[in-house]
Amino acid sequence: MGEKNIAFIGLGIMGSRMAKNLLKAGFPLTVHNRTKEKAEDLIRSGAQWADSPKKAAENADIVFTMLSHPEVVEAVVYADNGLFSGIKPGALWVDMSTVHPTFSKKMAEASSAQNIRFLDAPVSGSKIPAERGELIFLVGGEQTDFEEAKPYFEAMGKAVHYLGKHGNGSAMKILINLMLAHNMAAFSETVHLGEAMGLDKSMVVEMLLNHPVSAPILQGKKAKIMVLDFTPEFPLEHMQKDLHLVALTAFEKNYAMPLANVLKELYAQAKQHGYGRMDMSAIFKWLGQE
Amino acid sequence: MGEKNIAFIGLGIMGSRMAKNLLKAGFPLTVHNRTKEKAEDLIRSGAQWADSPKKAAENADIVFTMLSHPEVVEAVVYADNGLFSGIKPGALWVDMSTVHPTFSKKMAEASSAQNIRFLDAPVSGSKIPAERGELIFLVGGEQTDFEEAKPYFEAMGKAVHYLGKHGNGSAMKILINLMLAHNMAAFSETVHLGEAMGLDKSMVVEMLLNHPVSAPILQGKKAKIMVLDFTPEFPLEHMQKDLHLVALTAFEKNYAMPLANVLKELYAQAKQHGYGRMDMSAIFKWLGQE
Amino acid sequence: MGEKNIAFIGLGIMGSRMAKNLLKAGFPLTVHNRTKEKAEDLIRSGAQWADSPKKAAENADIVFTMLSHPEVVEAVVYADNGLFSGIKPGALWVDMSTVHPTFSKKMAEASSAQNIRFLDAPVSGSKIPAERGELIFLVGGEQTDFEEAKPYFEAMGKAVHYLGKHGNGSAMKILINLMLAHNMAAFSETVHLGEAMGLDKSMVVEMLLNHPVSAPILQGKKAKIMVLDFTPEFPLEHMQKDLHLVALTAFEKNYAMPLANVLKELYAQAKQHGYGRMDMSAIFKWLGQE
Amino acid sequence: MGEKNIAFIGLGIMGSRMAKNLLKAGFPLTVHNRTKEKAEDLIRSGAQWADSPKKAAENADIVFTMLSHPEVVEAVVYADNGLFSGIKPGALWVDMSTVHPTFSKKMAEASSAQNIRFLDAPVSGSKIPAERGELIFLVGGEQTDFEEAKPYFEAMGKAVHYLGKHGNGSAMKILINLMLAHNMAAFSETVHLGEAMGLDKSMVVEMLLNHPVSAPILQGKKAKIMVLDFTPEFPLEHMQKDLHLVALTAFEKNYAMPLANVLKELYAQAKQHGYGRMDMSAIFKWLGQE
Repeated sequence: MGEKNIAFIGLGIMGSRMAKNLLKAGFPLTVHNRTKEKAEDLIRSGAQWADSPKKAAENADIVFTMLSHPEVVEAVVYADNGLFSGIKPGALWVDMSTVHPTFSKKMAEASSAQNIRFLDAPVSGSKIPAERGELIFLVGGEQTDFEEAKPYFEAMGKAVHYLGKHGNGSAMKILINLMLAHNMAAFSETVHLGEAMGLDKSMVVEMLLNHPVSAPILQGKKAKIMVLDFTPEFPLEHMQKDLHLVALTAFEKNYAMPLANVLKELYAQAKQHGYGRMDMSAIFKWLGQE
Repeated sequence: MGEKNIAFIGLGIMGSRMAKNLLKAGFPLTVHNRTKEKAEDLIRSGAQWADSPKKAAENADIVFTMLSHPEVVEAVVYADNGLFSGIKPGALWVDMSTVHPTFSKKMAEASSAQNIRFLDAPVSGSKIPAERGELIFLVGGEQTDFEEAKPYFEAMGKAVHYLGKHGNGSAMKILINLMLAHNMAAFSETVHLGEAMGLDKSMVVEMLLNHPVSAPILQGKKAKIMVLDFTPEFPLEHMQKDLHLVALTAFEKNYAMPLANVLKELYAQAKQHGYGRMDMSAIFKWLGQE
Repeated sequence: MGEKNIAFIGLGIMGSRMAKNLLKAGFPLTVHNRTKEKAEDLIRSGAQWADSPKKAAENADIVFTMLSHPEVVEAVVYADNGLFSGIKPGALWVDMSTVHPTFSKKMAEASSAQNIRFLDAPVSGSKIPAERGELIFLVGGEQTDFEEAKPYFEAMGKAVHYLGKHGNGSAMKILINLMLAHNMAAFSETVHLGEAMGLDKSMVVEMLLNHPVSAPILQGKKAKIMVLDFTPEFPLEHMQKDLHLVALTAFEKNYAMPLANVLKELYAQAKQHGYGRMDMSAIFKWLGQE
Repeated sequence: MGEKNIAFIGLGIMGSRMAKNLLKAGFPLTVHNRTKEKAEDLIRSGAQWADSPKKAAENADIVFTMLSHPEVVEAVVYADNGLFSGIKPGALWVDMSTVHPTFSKKMAEASSAQNIRFLDAPVSGSKIPAERGELIFLVGGEQTDFEEAKPYFEAMGKAVHYLGKHGNGSAMKILINLMLAHNMAAFSETVHLGEAMGLDKSMVVEMLLNHPVSAPILQGKKAKIMVLDFTPEFPLEHMQKDLHLVALTAFEKNYAMPLANVLKELYAQAKQHGYGRMDMSAIFKWLGQE
């Protein structure tokens, strides 16, 4: 296994930490990022630098991508020095970016036309789990390809789920983010109403978080909410983008989502008023009483 | 303690089970309900029957009420044979109905004018916890009154929270129900989107319920969702009423709740289309693909 | 006709202008307002001042009220020096305040119990039409009472509609305000989207206002929108209150209104962020791009 | 002018009537449609038939397209026998389909790369105005191109607006449809609330339509609403698609639209429940009391 050449493209908050865990697990790694600075720590730790997605892909058996938008994925794949211009026939491309399932299916088809294999493998978890190798992988594609990539997923995550055909990984990912977005906004309105009724904020927060009506993931946002420090772990504008992908997909599938679309616009209001680069829990601040 | 005379008014799905637990704990009990049939099992178990709220209250040191609406509470209290026409000066009235905090404060003031004491003590939990004595009590009022009522709460519940002044119990209760309503509807839209994208329903349900983005309380609704059997534990129309109380309170307190108001109307649509007497989890059915 | 004694209670933006038109038409008038200053111009024009609603009502054959909220109407009616403590048996009370139909029916019943007659007669139109005597009256109650009040309505308005039983005037009024609230907010989002797409604001405003998709009433808000001057004619917080009455009524009547409830919360957000005392067209500013 | 060769592609409800008016005005016309049946009346009236978009475009100086979706436009343009494979350098393509402005700009750029000229010229008005030549044209692109196409627009419409650069026609069109969608849904909820309050439906409809809070365009929907006959003039699913284009565009431009997104989902619910092929005014039925 260790003899395989692997490449990793996209070294943001998530990608840099994930690549680090691959290196720690002893896998030789070639890396690329739009700006080289973000790769320097990895290079010092033994990663090879490649000047372009093409260069990164040329000798790779497996190429991992961890990018922010479907549009960025397309740019990295189709550019002159892009992934598709360098990748070897038969190689495996694993896209771990959060995209909508239609996009993953499109990438699977494009890969097939290039004689390469494809997995959509988005992850659940943000900065801290990425750092600790505790991400959850949600994977769609051929099962044999999944088995090939599994050791690498295990180096980056604590749970790996094979969910069936291409697009199913991306599908499950947007469902999880949708639930997170709902919980965060519902909890925010609820706590603010409690305060408006004269209840003590920390009492309300404690009572709710210790009651089974609250999703456990909200525990991780408690400190941010109590002191109103919204240093980003998962930027609010990424959540808003994910909710847009939810709405696009619902339109394609002819499913009406009145609640999710209102939710989407609350995050959009927050972004429009300057909260986009804060943590997604800053929806608490936006929905506040001034 | 056991020497106190206690009365219990309101023997619906919840009240009948709660009164039963008081009897089991050895407390002598006088009961009243609008229709006597619902009291018969309790009478066989040793409860005294009273023909009216007035009669029930006459000899009581503590009167518990468990009713469906603020309007019903008012009717029971102010009617010719109502609670206030019978209750002794100095007695304690404990209203466990789900009402809005403004209403609880109004009842506290009205009680004070009658020289009686008042606690708002709504409960979290539906049919099964009521039966098992596993409710959670959320109590507002004077602390000495709370201490006096505590043994009875403990006979009916597994946790008893003293939350401060009059209305705080009701305030926390509507917050908890609001979170439940949100979770149920968000989960419903999310699972349906999963199915619309071609994912297997039980796979989506399992993945989400085992992920920290889902509130633990949703586990209790899993069976209903999987087989679409919405036998009521907590009728949907009661949840819609609670959301109305949320909206009323938010208006009074000048707090805007865009998400909660949409949520409220989704439950209202479901009620309007005939789902009102089903379990509140029937919002899953309403939000479905037909 | 002119021999009847008439009283007018409530001299705000609307009421003061309406009372002035009654005076101009030659009707002798006794007036009352919470603060006397607002009556001074009317007193100079020949109106009698009364120190309380009771005093105002004592000699009146017809009492007109023009107040801001159901709560204020109740206070004026039931206070120690209130309307009901002074009004003569057989007199006619005409309530022109914007209230919900359930409230008007309650006032009709309370009036009947006092042996007085009642009309709900809210008006469509704000400051300028009030000044010019161009209001539209929407009247519910007995037809003979309507005929008795009609000459006075005609002195204040340009159109008078008899709509049937008690409450129907108030019912039609909240429908009209609901349409206005919708139009204003929909127009606002639409113009802002136009600007966000790079279109010229005044071109968009002109094109839309000259197209049959725009309600004619929006013409009257054009100047405010173009220069962002939201001097109040119809304060935004009154519109938010009216939308709350809509939501209350819809709940009572078991009709789900997903769109109106979102609309309500947009006005509530605007009020919460300090736009409450501006004109209701300030929803344009709230929904803007910052 | 009459010497120019013109082609017309897309002969649905709208296109067939528009092409007929071009013929009536004496312009020689080559037509194409996916299914030939819809062209037969036009062929009998003197139009030339072309087997493909390519054939239709080959000799044309100006090519008009009137298609249902951006996706259909792309298919007609880029197919093997598509518009771009046949059209002459220097020719003018006028796309009258309702698409979003980003798409129109993309088509303008693609046209430029093909050395052809482009106008986005969507129309306001449905079946009847199309038949009577009373459409309103909203045109974006070069002014000289606009002048060249103007005589043809005038044969099909009663008003022609030049709105500036490429995409501005499409931008204004989606704004107008958004206003229409709002008006129709707001009017529907309002009338239903009136009925729920016990008012007579036709009285409410008349009062509202004669009041300046109602957009004049609603007059044209009165008959449908009164008898609940929703024979399509503008199919509801097209409106839902247009609202989706609005939401897409708002996302691209970073403008939050809470009201429009709820509106969109109400039409989506209606479509999902089988109202998609009815007239868009069937939202009245969907929002009804059952």
